[in-house]
Amino acid sequence: MNNFYLEILHVDKHSKARYGYLHTPHGKVEFPMFMPVGTLATVKGLSPEELKEVGAGVILANTYHLSLRPGEDIVYKAGGLHKFMNYDGPILTDSGGFQVFSLAEKRKITEEGVTFKNHLNGAKRFFSPEIAIEIEEKLGADIIMSLDECVHYPADYEYMKNSVERTLRWAKRGKDAHKREDQALFGIVQGGEFADLRKYCAEELVKMDFPGYSIGGTSIGEPKDVMFQMIRNSTPYLPFDKPRYLMGVGSVDAILEGVQEGVDMFDCVLPTRIARHGALMTSTGRVNIRDKQYEEDFTPLDSNCDCYCCKNYTKAYLRHLYKCEEMFGKRLLSIHNIRFLIHLMEEIRKAIQEDRFLEFKEEFLKKFNNSKGF
Amino acid sequence: MNNFYLEILHVDKHSKARYGYLHTPHGKVEFPMFMPVGTLATVKGLSPEELKEVGAGVILANTYHLSLRPGEDIVYKAGGLHKFMNYDGPILTDSGGFQVFSLAEKRKITEEGVTFKNHLNGAKRFFSPEIAIEIEEKLGADIIMSLDECVHYPADYEYMKNSVERTLRWAKRGKDAHKREDQALFGIVQGGEFADLRKYCAEELVKMDFPGYSIGGTSIGEPKDVMFQMIRNSTPYLPFDKPRYLMGVGSVDAILEGVQEGVDMFDCVLPTRIARHGALMTSTGRVNIRDKQYEEDFTPLDSNCDCYCCKNYTKAYLRHLYKCEEMFGKRLLSIHNIRFLIHLMEEIRKAIQEDRFLEFKEEFLKKFNNSKGF
Repeated sequence: MNNFYLEILHVDKHSKARYGYLHTPHGKVEFPMFMPVGTLATVKGLSPEELKEVGAGVILANTYHLSLRPGEDIVYKAGGLHKFMNYDGPILTDSGGFQVFSLAEKRKITEEGVTFKNHLNGAKRFFSPEIAIEIEEKLGADIIMSLDECVHYPADYEYMKNSVERTLRWAKRGKDAHKREDQALFGIVQGGEFADLRKYCAEELVKMDFPGYSIGGTSIGEPKDVMFQMIRNSTPYLPFDKPRYLMGVGSVDAILEGVQEGVDMFDCVLPTRIARHGALMTSTGRVNIRDKQYEEDFTPLDSNCDCYCCKNYTKAYLRHLYKCEEMFGKRLLSIHNIRFLIHLMEEIRKAIQEDRFLEFKEEFLKKFNNSKGF
Repeated sequence: MNNFYLEILHVDKHSKARYGYLHTPHGKVEFPMFMPVGTLATVKGLSPEELKEVGAGVILANTYHLSLRPGEDIVYKAGGLHKFMNYDGPILTDSGGFQVFSLAEKRKITEEGVTFKNHLNGAKRFFSPEIAIEIEEKLGADIIMSLDECVHYPADYEYMKNSVERTLRWAKRGKDAHKREDQALFGIVQGGEFADLRKYCAEELVKMDFPGYSIGGTSIGEPKDVMFQMIRNSTPYLPFDKPRYLMGVGSVDAILEGVQEGVDMFDCVLPTRIARHGALMTSTGRVNIRDKQYEEDFTPLDSNCDCYCCKNYTKAYLRHLYKCEEMFGKRLLSIHNIRFLIHLMEEIRKAIQEDRFLEFKEEFLKKFNNSKGF
């Protein structure tokens, strides 16, 4: 794939944080980046134009969900995800592995793959590494993931060791099955909290030579310091010139930690999910818009924010929409939270280019801990 | 009010249909017009920018709902509805009369006003003609309505006669109470299906000299031919040079009938409400987007429509969003239905200017009856 590569323009002098462009078949995107999640081929409530306005580059869609509704064949017949959902920027799909292990029921894992009952109607389904690739090829994202086993935290060492071995065999099978030249298939580093298994998994994947690497098995209930250790146990063994993607992580402190260790890509449903429940990330800390104190607050949600919501609406109006369960409220609040994280990434990229990432991180976390947090 | 008047530019040679501009403190708007409904200071799911893009001029908000949430005082402190909801075009508020008689419970009507329990938490509330005006002045719309009794259909003649007398006394009281110079207060013609009461009510209101007149008590369960008769029993007694507004009517045949009789303004929740339930008005008839036949239909909802939804998305995608109960689907479908009606009004205005309104109406209704209807 000549049209998929990492163009590293600068590495922070005092950390492993990197800045540059990720080139994809649907355009180049600056990294480190936050990728909004559009589970069912829509970032809940937002238009593609709004996503671009907040500075979104890559967006994520979920293979497990899309294979159930509308089904990968319909997306394929529509001309792929980009056409189906009218998004001409880069798209990433996961392999369904995480959802099979978190959402689906009665899963049974064998060497061949995983059998499960879907969470919608309980119908039986089988995912193998080859089937995951087949679905992802039909969906047609720019960046796709190989099928992995996502083990619950905390896990038994022996179980995790066997699981990592199987995930590696699955990665190889997926790579062999993958044929589309216009998609970059990432291998996923698993191994839980065990340093030697993370190292082993990363090194074995690198031998297979993937165009990018993900760090999986994070944000599944482990304490923050364990997650940070998982990152530190993975990135050192990944090639410098390939993108690294920390899956499912979108909290501010974890993003900063990941960037410091050389992670380039982050995604999380958190900003949009909490927005729909009235919880907002702002430059002065967390805001619960339902709070009575905002009833007559005619100032913007975040006066330091340049998003459509903050430029045009007051907390009083947002609270009113939230209390009335109005769609437009969820839309405005989602726009804000996504913009907040994307703006953070912009600041991070600037700090990296100016070799002051560690100072930026320290200052931000100090402010963050002094505020009500997120 | 010098900045509120009807500029009639053309009257159809073969009917009473009129075309021109309604001038308001928030700009001029072409009529005949369809006004989208933004009950709680938001047209469900849509931004003010999207409303302008589909050609909306006046939008409507509901006094009853806003007085409950967030309360008129908060809207007033926000600087009025325009600022609160970020809409700089003209806004119309009703008086709450219709909701008090359709939504509220345990209403008790006296000469002074109406006591009721609100539909949200059952708290007791009292609306008088003066209180309705006070609330509407605080909300600050460009066009406001006087409090009326909206009598259920069918009604007893004697009851209706007494009700009309009271509505007239209420109209006078509201007019006396109304002080804001930047708002046009409309009187409402009631009288049910009784021709003499409609005539009497219209003539008495005209003596009070309102800047505009509404036709109320329609679209409350009466058959279409009765509604059409109500219109014909009202408009002849209204002054030529003042705007006429047919309240709560948005079906295509009733709009065409109203325009023919010289009605200038229409509003209805129908297009947005049915859109959220997957029912679309298209140039080839009604579409229920949930139907299986659209599962693999990669054509636009309405290839004759120029809206954002029809220009960018397929029926297959819209059906997928609908089936998954995704917000973005409701938003796209609402945009389409509003655009459909506003586009119809544009065609109507063109036909009036070219003295072919009756032909246009006949052709449209023929097509409409041949199709699956709305």
